[in-house]
Amino acid sequence: MCDKIHITSADIAEMEKGYRRNFINTLHGYKSANLIGTIDKEGNHNLAIFNSVIHIGAKPPYIGFIMRPAFVPRNTYENIMETGYYTINSIQKGMEPQAHQSSAKYDKGVSEFDEIGLTAEFGTVHTAPYVKESVVKIGLQFKEELHIKLNDTKLIIGEVVEVMVPSDMVLKDGTLQLHKADTLAVLGLETYAEVNPIKRFEYARPDEETEGLAF
Amino acid sequence: MCDKIHITSADIAEMEKGYRRNFINTLHGYKSANLIGTIDKEGNHNLAIFNSVIHIGAKPPYIGFIMRPAFVPRNTYENIMETGYYTINSIQKGMEPQAHQSSAKYDKGVSEFDEIGLTAEFGTVHTAPYVKESVVKIGLQFKEELHIKLNDTKLIIGEVVEVMVPSDMVLKDGTLQLHKADTLAVLGLETYAEVNPIKRFEYARPDEETEGLAF
Repeated sequence: MCDKIHITSADIAEMEKGYRRNFINTLHGYKSANLIGTIDKEGNHNLAIFNSVIHIGAKPPYIGFIMRPAFVPRNTYENIMETGYYTINSIQKGMEPQAHQSSAKYDKGVSEFDEIGLTAEFGTVHTAPYVKESVVKIGLQFKEELHIKLNDTKLIIGEVVEVMVPSDMVLKDGTLQLHKADTLAVLGLETYAEVNPIKRFEYARPDEETEGLAF
Repeated sequence: MCDKIHITSADIAEMEKGYRRNFINTLHGYKSANLIGTIDKEGNHNLAIFNSVIHIGAKPPYIGFIMRPAFVPRNTYENIMETGYYTINSIQKGMEPQAHQSSAKYDKGVSEFDEIGLTAEFGTVHTAPYVKESVVKIGLQFKEELHIKLNDTKLIIGEVVEVMVPSDMVLKDGTLQLHKADTLAVLGLETYAEVNPIKRFEYARPDEETEGLAF
């Protein structure tokens, strides 16, 4: 690596809009890539890609995602508020063209499943559609919405109420081997990446070297 | 992939604690892996790994992370509240043993930099320590704290006020080529993974195929 750039607030403020969007979005590292599926009261399906899904807690099992005001799929938010349920679905290698296309601004009532060529599938706990082609399918019940006043975004939190996953992907200790199904990550808004585990450690304690675990 | 498992809330509630922690933490996919550096009023340095750093907005440039109540580095939170500044530093391949060891519960006042063998480095905007060995170094000013009542966690949001990054890592459009420096991602709490971009798309529009971009 060659020379370092030193950037301050004034430099960031002067960046061209697209440059700043890419720079700030890629700065902190790789993100999960997921498709969020919803249904409205009339039964219309909606599907949209999100790269902001995060772990909130394991007991009870809570997962969150950030909903940006200018971001495309506001239908996702309206549908969650209408029905109380939504699904989070993984993106496998080969699905990235369809997954990315789901970020286009389709009209309300148009099913992204049909437009982009993915298949709706259903569980037994709620009526929100899962993505058949996804290997990990998570069903959530809406629990809490936090408003980030700074830039008018929302953190939407749901409780995991249903999971469908291949049995041979789950290690004995509960860890999902996502690489077995070529699950992708995303960088910024549009770069899809494959991921390969290199090392797994035990719980760390001061003055102790941790052992490696299977992954 | 073989048989699918179908899991509902009752199954999750009955999972053994460690199994549930691994299962829920790995469910939604890969996460960014970062070291957060802080300093207290007395000048003591603190460093801790976080896998919950997320993008909040590009203009102004906001980045957030989740602080869990039972999670180790409460010093991080106290120091941010005392001084108003902190750093987010990337984890390169080869740094994963030190990075993971930073999650051990060291006493307050003990510098994780010294204990785990990483080097503190400083910018010009604030006094919080960066990690010299990290390739991407982000300096933040604390802006907003949101309390997630559901499970007593916090979303901490800061504004990016300083960035140090190698010049040959930044594409003309602002995108950081994190793979050039073997930047790692994390799965769950303890599995470190290398990441390789496979495809980059343009902004998606309905009824249009997007072109591939350089990555």
